[in-house]
This record gives sequence, C-alpha cells and structure tokens, in this order.
Amino acid sequence: MKTITNKYPIDDGFYMPAEYEMHAGTWMLWPERNDIWRLGAKPAQEVFAEIANTIVNYENVSVGVSQSQYENARNRLNHKIRVVEISYDDAWIRDTGPTYLINKRSEIRGVDWHFNAWGGIGVKNESSWELSGSYYPWKLDDMVARKVLEIDNIYRYRCPLTLEGGAIHVDGNGTLIATKECVLGRNANLTVRQIENILSNYLGVTNIIWLERGLYVEENNGHIDNMCCFADAETILLNWCNDKSDPQYDISKEAYNILIKAKNTVGNNYNVVKLAQPPVQQITEKDHVGVDLSEYAIPRMPGDRLPATYINSYICNGAVLIPSFGANGDKELMECDANAYKIYSVLFKQKLIVQIPSRELLLGGGGIHCVLQQIPYNNK
Amino acid sequence: MKTITNKYPIDDGFYMPAEYEMHAGTWMLWPERNDIWRLGAKPAQEVFAEIANTIVNYENVSVGVSQSQYENARNRLNHKIRVVEISYDDAWIRDTGPTYLINKRSEIRGVDWHFNAWGGIGVKNESSWELSGSYYPWKLDDMVARKVLEIDNIYRYRCPLTLEGGAIHVDGNGTLIATKECVLGRNANLTVRQIENILSNYLGVTNIIWLERGLYVEENNGHIDNMCCFADAETILLNWCNDKSDPQYDISKEAYNILIKAKNTVGNNYNVVKLAQPPVQQITEKDHVGVDLSEYAIPRMPGDRLPATYINSYICNGAVLIPSFGANGDKELMECDANAYKIYSVLFKQKLIVQIPSRELLLGGGGIHCVLQQIPYNNK
Repeated sequence: MKTITNKYPIDDGFYMPAEYEMHAGTWMLWPERNDIWRLGAKPAQEVFAEIANTIVNYENVSVGVSQSQYENARNRLNHKIRVVEISYDDAWIRDTGPTYLINKRSEIRGVDWHFNAWGGIGVKNESSWELSGSYYPWKLDDMVARKVLEIDNIYRYRCPLTLEGGAIHVDGNGTLIATKECVLGRNANLTVRQIENILSNYLGVTNIIWLERGLYVEENNGHIDNMCCFADAETILLNWCNDKSDPQYDISKEAYNILIKAKNTVGNNYNVVKLAQPPVQQITEKDHVGVDLSEYAIPRMPGDRLPATYINSYICNGAVLIPSFGANGDKELMECDANAYKIYSVLFKQKLIVQIPSRELLLGGGGIHCVLQQIPYNNK
Repeated sequence: MKTITNKYPIDDGFYMPAEYEMHAGTWMLWPERNDIWRLGAKPAQEVFAEIANTIVNYENVSVGVSQSQYENARNRLNHKIRVVEISYDDAWIRDTGPTYLINKRSEIRGVDWHFNAWGGIGVKNESSWELSGSYYPWKLDDMVARKVLEIDNIYRYRCPLTLEGGAIHVDGNGTLIATKECVLGRNANLTVRQIENILSNYLGVTNIIWLERGLYVEENNGHIDNMCCFADAETILLNWCNDKSDPQYDISKEAYNILIKAKNTVGNNYNVVKLAQPPVQQITEKDHVGVDLSEYAIPRMPGDRLPATYINSYICNGAVLIPSFGANGDKELMECDANAYKIYSVLFKQKLIVQIPSRELLLGGGGIHCVLQQIPYNNK
C-alpha cells in the first residue's frame, strides 16, 4: 500500500479533473446486502449489470464483488469487464471509493476519505446510541478506497475529512461545488475555513461554491450529485422544481440564485441549465416486499419519498448514462424522461445519451452516479 | 476476463520461461485454514510474512488474502507489498495460481490448470466416496488462477489438464521435467503422448524429461519441485539420499540415472548436482496440537514423515530462498542446512542465499516453492 502522509496532493501538483474529461475507466461494486436491496438484490443486480455492460462499450470497467457473488457477477457481466474480489458493506463506490487525481506528469493518485455511512451513529439519549447514517457498521466500506487503489498500485492520500465522492463536483479548472448541508454537517467539528483548506489541499481546488442545501429528503444529507453537475467547463445542470408547493422549489431556487452569481477561477459566470425533476415518487408496498429486516440499516418504508432527479447521471467517454423512471408506462414520468433526454442531448452533442431505468437504485437510496467512480485518463 | 479458447499458447508464440530468469514479481496467498495449519495458522503466517518481506527487497510481491485476514496480513506485510482480497481453499499458489508465459513481443499470459487438490475424490467402496487429494472442496482454489490473472488484465488459457505448478519445471529453452507418478497419475484418462502434446501446446516445450517418481511419501504424488530444479540452463539440482535403508535412496538414484543421460533441446547433457536431503523428520505430538479436526482435510498425524528437501526453494531476482530445518538447534540438521547453503552459494554466485526456517510449511504439506509463483519479466 503506497500511502503518502508527509505531503498534500496540491504540493505534488495533483488535482481532481472533471467527470466530463477523458476517463481511463470506471469502477463499480456489485450490490448484495439484503437489508438494503429487495429480493436478494437480484433486481438491483440487473440494473448494475446493465450499467456496467453499457459503459464497457466506451471505456474499461472494473467491478468489485464479494466472494459469495463472484460467479454470479462474473457470469452476468461482459467478458471485457474486469471482475475482482473485494469486500464492502454496500455498493456505493462513488462514496466509498477513491477520488482520483492527476498531475501534469501523466500520474494518477487517489484520495481516501473517511467514510461513516452518511452520518455515522448518533446519541439517542444519555445512555444509548442510534443509527444516524444509513447502516452500521461501515468498516468494510471505509477500506474500499485503499483496496481499490492498491489493486492498481496507485498512491493514496488518506484525507482527514469525513466525506463521500457524491458530496463534491469539480469543473476541472479549480472550482468545486458542494452543499453546506452535507459537507459541514458531516464535519461539524471543523470550521468552513478549515474544510475549505482541506478540500483545497487534497483536490487542488482554489474556488469553492457553496450551495446551502441538496435534494429534499435525501438520506445523504444533501449530496451535490443529486442537485447539480458540470456538463462542461462553462455549464452547470441544476435539478429544478416547478411545483411551488414542493419544498424542493425553494431549495432549487436558492441554489439557482447562488449558481448564476458564482464565478469560475478565471472570473466568468457559468451557464446554469434548469432540468425539471420528475413528479414525486414514493416507495410502494410492493417495493417493500423482500427486504430483510434489520435494526442496523435504516428502514425505508412505503410512502417514503424517493430521491428522484435526472442530475444523478454519469458522463463516460462516449456516452452519458441518465436515469429514466417511466419504465412502467406512467405517461407523466415518460414525458419527464423525454425532456431530460432532450436536454442532455443538446448539452452532449458528441456523446450517446443512454437511459437507464433507475427506480431500483432509488429504492437502495441512490442513483446512477452513486454506483460509479471514474478513473481519469491522464494525458496532460 | 480475457480467456483465449481458439488457440494454444504455442500458436501465439508463448512459452514458459525458467524460474531462474528475470521476474516482474511474485504472487503469494496468505495461509488461514485451521484444519491444515496449527494454532489458527499464526505460526505459518509468520513464515509466509518472512518470505514475502524478504522477496520484496528484490522484486514486486502481491499477496492475496481473504476478507477476514485482510487487516492482519496488511499489517504484517511490508508496505511495499501489494495486498489484494481473494478467496481460496488454501495458500499454495504454486499449484493453484497461473503458470505465466512470455513471448517475443514483451507480452505475458497465463495458463490456468484444472486443480483437484492433488488427487480429488476417490471411491471408498461401491456406494461411498473418500478424499483422495488433500481436502474437499477445492472450488475456490480452482478459481485462483483466473482471478489472479484478471486482477492484472492478463490473458488466460484454460488448460484441459489436471495439474499443478509444482509438478513441472522448465529450463526456459524448451525442456520440461516432470514425474510420471504425478502427471500421469493425475490424468489417468490420457496417454503419455496426449499429455506431452498438451504440455507442448500450453508451455511451448518440445522436450520432456520424465522421472518415474518424486519424493518418498509426499502427498502431492511426486511433485517435481520436491525432487529437482534448474539452477541455470545447464544445471539440475537433485534431491539426494545417502542412506541406503531409506526408500528415497532408490528413488533419487533412479532419477539421477535418468537425468545424467537426458539432453536439452540442443543435444547437450545437464550437469546434475546432488543435494543431500536432511535426516528424516516427523510430525510430533506438539506439532499436532491446535489443528482443527475435519473429515474434509487429510489428517496429518504424529509420526508421519515430513516432506523435507532443500530442493523446494525459490529463485527470485536477487536472492535464492532455501529452507532450513535446524532452527531448534539440532546439530545434524544444522550441518545439513549448512551443506545446502554452501551448494546453493556455489551455484548462485550473483544472488544472496537466504535461509527460511521451513518446518512450519512442511506441517502444512509443502515448502517455500509451493507458496510462491513467479511472474516473468518479459524483456525479450
């Protein structure tokens, strides 16, 4: 394990490139835990396999899988995909995997954040504790980044921040966007200034745009990858809500007002493109069938709102994978899917837009972006 | 997984180089199973760690480890060693790992043998079966080679022969040595001619030297790596026995008579160097303490003869790791150790000879060579 402890990435000339830049490949993990994913995770595995088998048409894909699911995953994934054994608590490699950095000498390194399952444990009363994040324990998840880096002999920086890859987006030119709700909430012991210093040192950014809040009722406490993303160096795609009665309306409007005034590192504003979210969807009684009952994973109950947004997409070398929700034939959802498809098509003229039915991912608490981690292709 | 099924390695110009040639690195697995290794495998783990931590001074080392032993292995192994998760039935990667091949275009590929735990299952009587190999099941072991290759994106050939890496030695110039006892016994359904064809196609050899038998009472049924090895292209080191009352005397003499007459691919004889084996050692009552009792692993009992030989060594880039048995102060064993050290020192003038106390490995059924697998450095 090559861990660098005496320097920051920025000292070595390393920084995080944007997702829309060229990739060397993509990492995924294979979903398995039965108290998160319904029906033995089989419906989720189908979606994960579809995603992996799509991306491998455009770039290398590596999928980490447990010993027990090795054969099943290997047999369901395209033979061009590299499948390796690894242990984990759940399959959200965006949040548990490394954040990859590059420098100007064709090198790649990785940042290994502290992970506490999106919130860790909280105090219930004076003498007992309760789950504050999504599950306990998260020890295997916290070791995913280092293991993934070690497989490819990539140098690692362990960052003294509790954070997830889904909590940050960068434009590749020195600007980072995040929500205070998430990043400050996760690191309540640190000041904004301290957090900004750490982000700067570890990601090579010099400019941080803070949104106040992320998606409404989203269990990751405001991950930026559910709120907005960079389509290119000048363009931010923002989750939009046209329903004034929906609490998301104010959240998106607040974010919009911040983003249109925000400047990049050369002093220019961004183009902010509004992308309408689909109508509110909820967990149904049927969705709830076949989920193992456990006190150590947060319950997701019928009636709970799903974190549906078209922002939670993934830009790979030749395609953009975007979620769709109208697979069951719901006309309103299909229209929203079509609108999202159109907007992405306009923004990514050189890439194929691929719609991935994503309701199954929402049931597990995330989306397409959450289950993928890009390795940048360093041609600097 | 990159598996080649439509061609033989020899068709693609691939062949197995000799162990004494330059390595790109070495693979190991971490011992763990409690019905093979005494005291929770902790004494064995110390020896494995010593071996890995020695070799990494000379070449890259990768160690595969189970989820449950990941942290312990990672913390006991030098930080320069790559530790990756993998599942396996036991830690003999010489026999379960790939046999690496090279060609003249700086490429590396691997042969994945069928593995049946050194003998598979046998018929006890008309209606029941019994263990013929060393343990059952061996499914995870049979998948080790493909997993190890996949981690490094190396092309794989699955060979239709039940064999282990310890059953073959090559001189790197087209000659292979093996014992009929092992290779024919393991593939009783095939003729010698058929086996020779397969070995030729998969290892690129054109000349096969058959010894009749391997080490006396050795549970691998005559692995060549307990009998003889190539020190260089001209020199074969042979396990020797000076005690006429020991059954090994006749076995070694028989092998010697075959080897001195054998020719390499350019028609020359080899120099055959006799290396005296240590006095017979047995499993003691103390050795037997703390081994889990299982019907699915062969019992090793007090009084059983240990497969001790100085041949079971490992040639890496800057060193040769050879076994020693006199760690407890036994004078006769220490003298034999010294003799082996001297012979290796003369044969390998450019390499450091490192003695590894190996009794613990013998208790598990093998030696230094059995727990290591070299990746050739392809500079052709």
